[in-house]
Amino acid sequence: MAQKPSIPKGTRDFLPVDVAKRTYVTDMIRSQFERFGFLPIQTPAMEKSSTLQGKYGEEGDRLMFHILNSGEKVKKANIAALEENKLGAFTQSVSEKALRYDLTVPFARFVVQHQNEITFPFKRYQIQSVWRADRPQRGRFQEFTQCDADVVGAISPLLEAECIQLFDNVFDTLSLMGATIRINHRGILAGIAAFLDAPERLVDFTVALDKLDKIGTEGVFDELRNKGFSDAALARLTPLLQLSGDITSQLDQLENILEAHPKAIAGIHHLRMVLSFVCPLKVSHLSFDLTLARGLNYYTGIIFEVAPPQTVSMGSIGAGGRYDDLTAVFGLRDMNGLGISFGLDRLCMVLEELDLFPQSLQQAVDIVVLNFGDEAMQDLVPYLLKWRDEGIRINCYPTHHKLKKQMQYANQVMAPWVILYGDEEQQKAVVSLKNMQAGTTNEIPLASFSKAALND
Amino acid sequence: MAQKPSIPKGTRDFLPVDVAKRTYVTDMIRSQFERFGFLPIQTPAMEKSSTLQGKYGEEGDRLMFHILNSGEKVKKANIAALEENKLGAFTQSVSEKALRYDLTVPFARFVVQHQNEITFPFKRYQIQSVWRADRPQRGRFQEFTQCDADVVGAISPLLEAECIQLFDNVFDTLSLMGATIRINHRGILAGIAAFLDAPERLVDFTVALDKLDKIGTEGVFDELRNKGFSDAALARLTPLLQLSGDITSQLDQLENILEAHPKAIAGIHHLRMVLSFVCPLKVSHLSFDLTLARGLNYYTGIIFEVAPPQTVSMGSIGAGGRYDDLTAVFGLRDMNGLGISFGLDRLCMVLEELDLFPQSLQQAVDIVVLNFGDEAMQDLVPYLLKWRDEGIRINCYPTHHKLKKQMQYANQVMAPWVILYGDEEQQKAVVSLKNMQAGTTNEIPLASFSKAALND
Repeated sequence: MAQKPSIPKGTRDFLPVDVAKRTYVTDMIRSQFERFGFLPIQTPAMEKSSTLQGKYGEEGDRLMFHILNSGEKVKKANIAALEENKLGAFTQSVSEKALRYDLTVPFARFVVQHQNEITFPFKRYQIQSVWRADRPQRGRFQEFTQCDADVVGAISPLLEAECIQLFDNVFDTLSLMGATIRINHRGILAGIAAFLDAPERLVDFTVALDKLDKIGTEGVFDELRNKGFSDAALARLTPLLQLSGDITSQLDQLENILEAHPKAIAGIHHLRMVLSFVCPLKVSHLSFDLTLARGLNYYTGIIFEVAPPQTVSMGSIGAGGRYDDLTAVFGLRDMNGLGISFGLDRLCMVLEELDLFPQSLQQAVDIVVLNFGDEAMQDLVPYLLKWRDEGIRINCYPTHHKLKKQMQYANQVMAPWVILYGDEEQQKAVVSLKNMQAGTTNEIPLASFSKAALND
Repeated sequence: MAQKPSIPKGTRDFLPVDVAKRTYVTDMIRSQFERFGFLPIQTPAMEKSSTLQGKYGEEGDRLMFHILNSGEKVKKANIAALEENKLGAFTQSVSEKALRYDLTVPFARFVVQHQNEITFPFKRYQIQSVWRADRPQRGRFQEFTQCDADVVGAISPLLEAECIQLFDNVFDTLSLMGATIRINHRGILAGIAAFLDAPERLVDFTVALDKLDKIGTEGVFDELRNKGFSDAALARLTPLLQLSGDITSQLDQLENILEAHPKAIAGIHHLRMVLSFVCPLKVSHLSFDLTLARGLNYYTGIIFEVAPPQTVSMGSIGAGGRYDDLTAVFGLRDMNGLGISFGLDRLCMVLEELDLFPQSLQQAVDIVVLNFGDEAMQDLVPYLLKWRDEGIRINCYPTHHKLKKQMQYANQVMAPWVILYGDEEQQKAVVSLKNMQAGTTNEIPLASFSKAALND
């Protein structure tokens, strides 16, 4: 019996116009990545479980898609583990591979595995899908695409400035005005934790601070109190949340407050250095944001997060930061890294909402050639080949249906041009070229028709 | 303890130069697909198991990668089935999704699911990875990329001729001379089976015939004898395997032999009609091949298979054919289809072996800017932005290392140009542009440097 077909929840089919839009965005990102000297790599969709497991915390292990072992191997299923509700152990017994969960860990694995084939500092970009068994919701999918650029093997504020510039350039080419690139520095956060007399509770502190937008100052204070921060500490925190003026001035205020805390001072100096390499941004805002902490614990220096324009209600569309020693877990120490990432899916949703996709993306074919029967088409075959060689995208209507039906088809596929080659045209050795929007028709000699005719 | 990292067998990492080569090929294929009026779609990497299972025969079910259910769902494992060695039932109990095994079945599913959103005849192309738990060997991977173009909702020899032309065009743009596009027709094979008095054993017959290349005439005859074909039948087969001359003449000979068998005659007439729409090929050979049967049973009309140039020892690099009713299993009847497919991985191996990749693919960055310290770089920042806006791919060396080390780096990343901006250049407000191949250096005023300087 026929099934009614559907796809797994959280995954998507992309119709031609969707693919055109996604390709438009990735082409722009790719082109900017390359202008900033990043080189493309690709890694397999499946990694060994041992490569991925334990690298993303408990949540990551839970949301990872595991590949069931093939054939006889599945017989090694640890049934005892299943019965004892040890699902992790059971999974391990029937699965050795998992789907890519992000692009960063596979990149770290890549760097270690290919360290003798690549040149450091190594600037790589990677645009590939990742998979997470997350509960699907707006802007969150089980299969989505990340666009990452990372450099490993160098520390330099110049590189970090380039990340900011790269964000701005990408948004500029996409005509996306008003994104906010928020920056902060882990050293500053560490300094503040020390300033609050709780250096060992940096993680508690940043986790709470990260929620400022959502739960407000009082909410953050409540959470910090519950985590054991004293009222005196919270009183000291207040002025930090009230910095004002431009970035330079905010950093000055911060330096005054935190002058006794060397980690914070180093972080502040570093950000000043980064800013010295940044040109005025074209379409984005740059903002220093003390509350920016980024969930991922592997960041060690500067951190970035990009918010879409305020009119769009959507989480971050880009992020990144400096991390040290990401490759250590694979046996390569002292390899500093810096990376940024664009979320293709959210970026497309933002562009869609702001109506920023060019109209031309709707148009995937240039000419529909109407079919006036076998003889007419046989005549046209060598010309079709010639016109296609010029780069014209031509869809020949395959059968000799009624012209009305064929014209309808040309309309539906949004062809801007239609070629007619009926009896009259055959006798005169011309084609009639119809401009579908203007409704006008031109006769052009078969032998001289070329791409130029489409620009008139 | 640090792991020594590696990737699953049969999968591959792609280094920058590999990605450049693969992108070069897919860009060519994509561009040709679009010129022939095909539109891009994409489907999820994971499909519901019910969509894929049973669609590829027993081998397909066995080689499919299944995704283990997440979280608590895995508790539904059918342990009894496992103990009774019913591995299929066990797999079903712990897995609801599988990785894409080819692009054809997902496309059929897509057509049915989106039938109200697309316009028929629907010409789609799709370039995506597929996964098979096959034993890895030369040219066979567990993750590989297919490039498919299909049209559904039309029957027309014109479309089939376009498939042939499309193969030739792709090979032409890749400078791949001497591929052989073999064609045959299922109707002819059915007619021959009838001619051999064994119409009900068409599959046995085509399976044996398909091996002619490998096991020779005698081998095929042995196999057919074992399947119950009579010696008289085999004697009748002999002249069919001795057709000579060009395609037209071979079809004439065949028509004489098979004149009493309408399916064969219809197939022969159809091929003649297809040929009437084919222009002389540019770089490929077109050959009629009676032994071409294609393993897949869903083909119902013309079949294609492309062999690489004879100097390369490699299986087919392209294939395709007409299939009827592929969507019926998903509830949509009478939807005729025609499709062709390029195997990206094998195609790349062939181009590699014949040294047909352009040298320029090695070059992923245009300029390395040497780092003469923070002040120099700060000076350059606005210019770098301008040059990148012109499309120049610039890699700024991130730190003020010794020049020798920086030059080494520029050499290793194969940059054709290096920019120096040291004390002297700063005073004169120029950059020194070094041509790495020629070894020559030009001074160019900072303000007037542009992309044009790289063409001199």
